[in-house]
Order: sequence, then structure tokens, then C-alpha cells
Amino acid sequence: MLQSKLFTKVRREDPKDEVAKNAKLLIRAGFINKELAGVYAYLPLGLRVLNKINNIIREEMIAIGGVELSMTALQNPEPWKASGRWDEAKVDNWFKTKLREGAELGLGFTHEEPLALLMKNHINSYRDLPIYVFQLQTKFRNEERAKSGIMRGREFLMKDLYSFNKSQTEMDIFYEQAKQAYINIFTRAGLGDQTFVTFASGGSFAKYSHEFQTVCESGEDTIYLSRAKKIAVNKEVYNDEVLADLGLSRAELEEVKAVEVGNIFKLGTRFSEALELNFVDEDGSKKPVIMGSYGIGPGRLMGTVVETLADEAGIVWPTNIAPFDVHLVALDYVKNEAVKKSADNLVAELEKAGLEVLIDDRDASAGAKFSDADLIGIPARLVISQKTLDSGKIEWKDRKTGEVKNLSAGELLTALAK
Amino acid sequence: MLQSKLFTKVRREDPKDEVAKNAKLLIRAGFINKELAGVYAYLPLGLRVLNKINNIIREEMIAIGGVELSMTALQNPEPWKASGRWDEAKVDNWFKTKLREGAELGLGFTHEEPLALLMKNHINSYRDLPIYVFQLQTKFRNEERAKSGIMRGREFLMKDLYSFNKSQTEMDIFYEQAKQAYINIFTRAGLGDQTFVTFASGGSFAKYSHEFQTVCESGEDTIYLSRAKKIAVNKEVYNDEVLADLGLSRAELEEVKAVEVGNIFKLGTRFSEALELNFVDEDGSKKPVIMGSYGIGPGRLMGTVVETLADEAGIVWPTNIAPFDVHLVALDYVKNEAVKKSADNLVAELEKAGLEVLIDDRDASAGAKFSDADLIGIPARLVISQKTLDSGKIEWKDRKTGEVKNLSAGELLTALAK
Repeated sequence: MLQSKLFTKVRREDPKDEVAKNAKLLIRAGFINKELAGVYAYLPLGLRVLNKINNIIREEMIAIGGVELSMTALQNPEPWKASGRWDEAKVDNWFKTKLREGAELGLGFTHEEPLALLMKNHINSYRDLPIYVFQLQTKFRNEERAKSGIMRGREFLMKDLYSFNKSQTEMDIFYEQAKQAYINIFTRAGLGDQTFVTFASGGSFAKYSHEFQTVCESGEDTIYLSRAKKIAVNKEVYNDEVLADLGLSRAELEEVKAVEVGNIFKLGTRFSEALELNFVDEDGSKKPVIMGSYGIGPGRLMGTVVETLADEAGIVWPTNIAPFDVHLVALDYVKNEAVKKSADNLVAELEKAGLEVLIDDRDASAGAKFSDADLIGIPARLVISQKTLDSGKIEWKDRKTGEVKNLSAGELLTALAK
Repeated sequence: MLQSKLFTKVRREDPKDEVAKNAKLLIRAGFINKELAGVYAYLPLGLRVLNKINNIIREEMIAIGGVELSMTALQNPEPWKASGRWDEAKVDNWFKTKLREGAELGLGFTHEEPLALLMKNHINSYRDLPIYVFQLQTKFRNEERAKSGIMRGREFLMKDLYSFNKSQTEMDIFYEQAKQAYINIFTRAGLGDQTFVTFASGGSFAKYSHEFQTVCESGEDTIYLSRAKKIAVNKEVYNDEVLADLGLSRAELEEVKAVEVGNIFKLGTRFSEALELNFVDEDGSKKPVIMGSYGIGPGRLMGTVVETLADEAGIVWPTNIAPFDVHLVALDYVKNEAVKKSADNLVAELEKAGLEVLIDDRDASAGAKFSDADLIGIPARLVISQKTLDSGKIEWKDRKTGEVKNLSAGELLTALAK
């Protein structure tokens, strides 16, 4: 893709109304646009990253039996009244709106209630279970403060999976599969080394829920972490009883700041009882369906990658979620016909090899192109110029390590091949 | 995919609270779920159709130079106040909501204003133009009545492309490309024969806008159509002056009901002047950017396909947007080991050939399976049973024509190969 067609312009200065590193860098580099505090549009570069994250999540959810659907933002109050969550004394971050005739509606901040209601049309017998459904859908939360860029938005994409099981055992087995799928997702997205399964409060139906916490200075959570055991405890349940239960001692735990990039939660029959979502079991008895919910915010994940992996020069994307595989910086592309021809040929070859290439075709100085490439953070930066043409080699810089190599086109294709 | 994993159950009876054919059939067959009047969730089958339509649209938009982004639902009132469209006396279908501190927000029903505002960060000079951006994004419209199923929703997906040009000539050329891209979309989606470019009111900046109207009994619009000339005139501009201008006579035009499945609109400088979106032209003078907007509702398109192509037995999907290519009905799949093995093998072979297969693995009667398959409307229905195993042939029924053939597995693969 031609960089001139992206339409976005890199900014030299940080936006004045942002405090979060992720928002500053993503806005400067043209990945997102701030519409309101906590409300961001995804520009072409940002949407490419978001879609790559979404696709990793989708693959892992399908692998554990998830079936994709898409619920709505506008919410009928009825099922929320049944569960008690319509009341703003209990849920303080609703956005509510009205039909023209005056009836009140909500904007969904999650979807347990409407899904439990929907499933009443489809679940009758134990034979209809288990069911695992997920969506990648926009949520709305009326947060009091929104200063964390895309890490805590008032409008944001969420992957939410809901499990419907006939027994606690069946749900427990799925829960462990979901936990592993989450580990796979964070590993594939480049956060594996710094993300830890964290024990948190389980609510009324389970001893614990599990969070996936990424160690991050700007994180809002405090966790107590054993890197050796790859396990952590959220501050909210950090007490002697829990530590004894988990076989952990205070001495082996390190207090760190972290971002919750995902969570999984056993809901038991909290919502199925409220919405009367029952099934007839093998023995003929009627029982409430056992539910679980499993969330990841793809935008928060993207923001966490920026917060934790960026360096002084800008963003550093992990290869699996980078907007492009290769950033080909062509110097004098507009004026030097030989450079243009060589660059266009190389792009064609790279694309033939299955690589996604952003080519900097702009009429800009070498300095501007290099600093913009560092800011945008695509893993491999290639340079073609009159100098590289004369030498017969192309310059390859690894964005993460800074390592530079000069390779022939053939060597380059071999090295970059996926 | 196993039909038992879809979780949706086919209903024998029409839902009582729906009048539109598309809603009745899509709900009965398990493609959508009604959350509220005019607000529908997309279940797995429905989401597959919607995504296929989205992908066709995406490909055609990229082919004419469109770059994808994603704006937000929550809207800052400021740019809308600048254009005059915040006022509910002018726009009567806003959904509005509030931040906790009390500030009013809107839910976007379109995106000219926020995009014009966004482009001010990126457009300075004629060198930055043209720009063509599009999104597949959820819109909210507070419709007074919502009785048309997914053909007129209060919450619905929309593809909206916006053009930003430096001259009227440049915009006119793009407008014609967009018109052709729209024709391609409706043709690929299976509505080509019944969809006509229709002249409609152009507003203040152009003589005409163009609608894409699909002939449909339940349509809300009236158009005057020449099938021979493949052209139509919307009732709103059906007068002697317009007919003379277009070289049409009343005698050659047929009055028909139709659904507007797309529209393209020259906006001129309506929004760029209001939002002060200017550029410096080659001659050094400052000028407002010339804009256009180009909309298609993928859900409305899907609903229109159901309305116009369904028959007595149910939905009939065109091949390019069907949820699956093949519906393999395996009789006694659960109890007959030979049927199960043969069906599983055939699915593996069909999938290897790149076909998407839904296999009816349910423990249900042949009659129920056949009538459900007709209702769901996948183009090719295959039957495997003890009878077909004995004969060495597989039964293939074409959903659209009803034609039945008995073929060997090899013949079938050749016939179905894409």
C-alpha cells in the first residue's frame, strides 16, 4: 500500500489533551483519532492492527468450540430489570437513551442478560448443551474519567464469549480450555512474556475468577506476582487465606502495576435463574443453565502493546499484529525514476511472497521518512535509495532490536519469508 | 460445520410480532433475533451472510481507491452544531444520551460532520487530495415506526464511503466509478437483474442524486422504470422537466414499488464550508474541499434478497452470499454408522475443494430435515442416506430451481467446484 494513500499525517508534537502514552503515540502516528474523551475512531493503520488482533482472538475462540454471533448495542430494559442490573444504583456506568415515543433504552456494556433471554428460544434439553457463543462487538460504558487512551474507553470493541453448560464439571473443563486459549492469544499478540494468570475475586458462584494481567507501569491494577511460578494474585484478594490456598508465600511475590487485558468468570446460575433459562436434564428434572463469561478488549490489548513495547523513537509492533510486515522507505521515490522502479519491483516480489508492505512514496526528506517509520513501528524497515542501488544491496533494519543488515533482494526475500 | 453446533432451532410458526416477510423468514430459520422493534441480533447463520455481503462491498470499495477506517457511534455535538444538524427540528431521528457529568452526546446516524472535522488534521494542500475513505459501521436512527425487519432498522450496519476532492471534475469522475462499483456489488450479491440506477433529488449541490432501487412488492418507494433502458426515476422527481432532461417519455415507464438498497450523493461544499475544511490549491488560493457520500446498508441488502428471492418453502440465497455453499443432509446420521462415515468423508472432500459445508447431523426426521433445509435456503442440498449408499449415488437438489440429480461423489465434486 502507498503511504500517500493512507491520508493520515504524522504529527511531530504530542496532542495536548492526552496524558496516556498509548494515546499520544497512536494519535501522532495516525492510528487513531480522538472524537471525545474515551472515544476513538480507528484510522486505516489502527484498524489494520485491530483486525489482526480480532482475527487471532477469533481463531482461538473457534478452536475451543466458539460460534460467532453479533448482539446489539440498543438494549431492551426488561431482561436487565429481571437481573437487577437496570438500576443505576447498582450499575453506575450505563449510557441510556430514549425512543421517540419515550420508552427508555440502554446501550449494552455487556450481554449476559439479552443472551440468556435469547437462549430461552433455543435451549430446552440437556441435548442442546453445551453452547459457546462469542462476538466482537462494541460496548458502551459511561466512565467517570477517561484518561487512559484506548486502554479504558467509553465506547470500545470487546470480545465476549458466553458458555452455557449442563453441569459444573462440563463448565470447569471448558473454563480451563478458555484459560489456555487466552494464554495463546496474548502470546500470539506479543504480550506473552509479560502477561500472567491472576487470581481475583470470584463473586458469589466461584472462589476465584481469573484475570490476565500484563505488567505495565501505567496499569491501574496492583498484583502480587511470582514470575517463577507464572502466577499472580490481585490486590483485592491478597490475604493470608488466599495465599495459603494457592500455596504462595509473601516472600516470593513481587508487587507490580499491571493492566487487566482479559478476564474469565464463572457466573453459575446468577443470570439463568433471573431470566428463567432452564433445561430438562437426563433425569427429567428442570435445572437452570450454568453460565460463564470470558472477555478481552482488543483495543485495550492494542493500547497495552503500545504502552509496554514502545521505545524512545515510537511504537514497536509485534510481528503478528503489525499493520504491515514491511515498511519500504524509498528515498527520492518521486524524483528518482530508478529508485521508484526498484522499489515497485521489490514491493511486487514481497507481496508475491505473502508479505504486507507499506511503501513510503511521499515527497519527504530522508530524516522525516526514517523518524516517521520509527514512530509507526512496523517490524522490518527496508531502505531503497540511489546509494543502495549503487551497492546492489538493500538496507534492512529490525525495528525492535535496531539491528541493520545490507542484503541482496534474494537474501532479503528468504530472510523475510513467513 | 455441524448444524447441531449452530445452537439455533428452526421455528415452525411465524413470529407473531413481525409483519415483514424478511423478518419472519430470517427469525424462523435462525438467522436473526429480534431484540426490540427495528433492532436485530445476527445469529451465526445471519452473521455469515452479512460478512459475505460486507466482503463484496469492501472489495469493490478498495478497487475504486477506498481506504477503510472506523468512526465511532458516540458523537460530540460540536461539529453537528456547526452544520446545523444537531437541532432536532432539522434531524428528527437522533438517539441522544448523556455523559455522567451531564454533557449531551449523540449516536451517529451518518458521519459527514465528524469526518470533515477529522480531515482538517490531514488535508492542507491540493497534494493531499483526493481522499476516499469508507467504513462498515453501526448507525443509529430513532425511526418512528420499525416494521420492515432488517430493511429499516433503528440500529443497523452501514457501509458509508466519503469522497474528498479538489475539483468538481475530479469528483464527477469518481462518482461515475462509484456508480459502477455499486452496480458490481448488487450484481455479485444476486440482485443485479432487479436493481436499477434511479434518478432522485440532488439537494442543493447537484441536479440529481442516484439511488439503487430493487424492484420489490414490499418496497417503500415508488419508481418509474424503463427495463429496456435500465434506468428509473424516483416519484419525488417524476415530472415533465426531469423526463425531458433524461430523454424519457411517460409511455415507456412502468410504475413499480422498490427498495432503495444504495444511494450516492454529491454534497458539494455543504459540510466542508460548515466545518471549514479547506485546502490550498495549486494557484495558492484557499478553497473548500468538495465532498460526496455513498451509502449501502448490508442488512437492508440481505433483507431485500430475502423479500425478492424467497419462495413458498423459504429463503433462496444467491451463491455469493449464502451462509454455506452446501447443505449436506445426512439421514440417520446419529444412528447409522455407515451414513455418518460417508457423510464425514464427503464433507472433508468438499471442504478440501474450498466449499463451505453445513452438515445436518441432528437426530431428526427426514421430513423435518428437508423442510428446514428449504427454509434455510443454502444453494446446494445434498442427501446421504442408507438408500443413497446402496445406490452409490448422492442426491443433489438445486434450491433455486428444484432440479434434482443423482451423482457419484466424484461427479458431485466436479459439478460443485468453484
